[in-house]
Amino acid sequence: MNALDKLKNKNKEGKFICVGLDSDIEKIPPHLRNMENPILEFNKSIIESTLDHAAAFKINFAFYERNGYEGLLTLEKTISLIPKDILIIADAKRGDIGNTSEMYAKAVFENLNFDSITVNPYMGEDSILPFLKNHNKLIFILALTSNPSAEDFEKLKLQNGMFLFQQVIEKVKVWNKNNNCGIVFGATRSEELENNIKSFGSLPVLLPGVGAQGGSLKEVVSIFKNNKRFEYVINVSRGIIYKSNDKDFYKTAENEIKIMNDEVRKLFNY
Amino acid sequence: MNALDKLKNKNKEGKFICVGLDSDIEKIPPHLRNMENPILEFNKSIIESTLDHAAAFKINFAFYERNGYEGLLTLEKTISLIPKDILIIADAKRGDIGNTSEMYAKAVFENLNFDSITVNPYMGEDSILPFLKNHNKLIFILALTSNPSAEDFEKLKLQNGMFLFQQVIEKVKVWNKNNNCGIVFGATRSEELENNIKSFGSLPVLLPGVGAQGGSLKEVVSIFKNNKRFEYVINVSRGIIYKSNDKDFYKTAENEIKIMNDEVRKLFNY
Repeated sequence: MNALDKLKNKNKEGKFICVGLDSDIEKIPPHLRNMENPILEFNKSIIESTLDHAAAFKINFAFYERNGYEGLLTLEKTISLIPKDILIIADAKRGDIGNTSEMYAKAVFENLNFDSITVNPYMGEDSILPFLKNHNKLIFILALTSNPSAEDFEKLKLQNGMFLFQQVIEKVKVWNKNNNCGIVFGATRSEELENNIKSFGSLPVLLPGVGAQGGSLKEVVSIFKNNKRFEYVINVSRGIIYKSNDKDFYKTAENEIKIMNDEVRKLFNY
Repeated sequence: MNALDKLKNKNKEGKFICVGLDSDIEKIPPHLRNMENPILEFNKSIIESTLDHAAAFKINFAFYERNGYEGLLTLEKTISLIPKDILIIADAKRGDIGNTSEMYAKAVFENLNFDSITVNPYMGEDSILPFLKNHNKLIFILALTSNPSAEDFEKLKLQNGMFLFQQVIEKVKVWNKNNNCGIVFGATRSEELENNIKSFGSLPVLLPGVGAQGGSLKEVVSIFKNNKRFEYVINVSRGIIYKSNDKDFYKTAENEIKIMNDEVRKLFNY
């Protein structure tokens, strides 16, 4: 099954929440820290408890690289815990000259068998093409990100009257010949989302920023609903995985994603 | 010794060439491929033979990530082969929201003990700050890159009349409060280099693109000389490390970097 179909299938079941595995040894419940591989145990519990409710899982590479090659090994083992019918996103924000991006694409799609990756558009088309050559994968290109400093460059006005992020979206639509592109759009940016959603065409959207970063699930879902757009996924990391520090933290995580799914379904009248 | 001083010391010795370790199992000499760790053997020979002539070493993360956690282990072992008085650059082009960039900074500066990293400015200041907090390190921020598609976004004209890459350079000068910022500027872009070098202030410059990508060593060095700018480093990867496929490939690599150093010295009348 190709990556976009995996997402669409979950969307049709009314599932729009991606569980972000930003797993940090300093934030996981204390009782796990004496185990042989605390991060892997943590991920296992979170995956098992949220699997039936999630639209996707997103693995934030920084949190694994922070632990060197052992972290990479944990990342590989984590992927193997997630069933093949659910989208797994490598949140890596890669992008480099062609022959280097080629290596990043192989690392993420061949070695690790991810369905999807986030990439940075700054260096332009030839830095993205090696990812796009993988027709069955889904490549989310950064458009307008959720962080405050998105203002610095992404929201600069160009001479043609567009913001830089709008120009990126226009390019992504051109690059989307094989229906394997998507965009990243911050859930903290509901005003810009409302003003720009019509320009997205059919591109699927990955929306980080609900929860710890202050984005509103309700606002985001309403905008997509009002525009009859149904291919999107809202990432929540800290708001699900660190909601509780108790022994049954995974039950709290499950409950959180259920509450979010219920909120989405109420808006959609499922 | 801080990172910038390491570079300045080499520059004062007339050394401006960075050896890029884009080590690829498919491109290294065939006789190495039966060894236990061919990439590590290759890197060891290249490092030993070019060490006395190099201004820096640059490790391109993609080529190691491509081999999963074993690749990361090779990367760690490679770093340990390079003496501490020479700048080691993590060519990783990272950048993410604050708490994630924090993890990338720890991975590269704390775990791996790199002196320097390349980062992508697209997401703005808060995505760069976690790197800049490391005052003894050197953070090279992408300005105008060496690839053809740099035209797509980096060379877009803004409403204030500047190109995006020029606006990035202006921001980097503001971020450079602790003298630990630099910029990446493609050696393939000699015209833009000539037109913009006066705007760089005192920022050190990392210039990729000489050799396989078509940049001219002579042109680049002349521009820096004419502008009395001496803090820069020109990266050559394929043009040094893959110059020969023979058993004595490392001698050819040594000879290549010596020729380049001689060319630089001739221009400078050392």
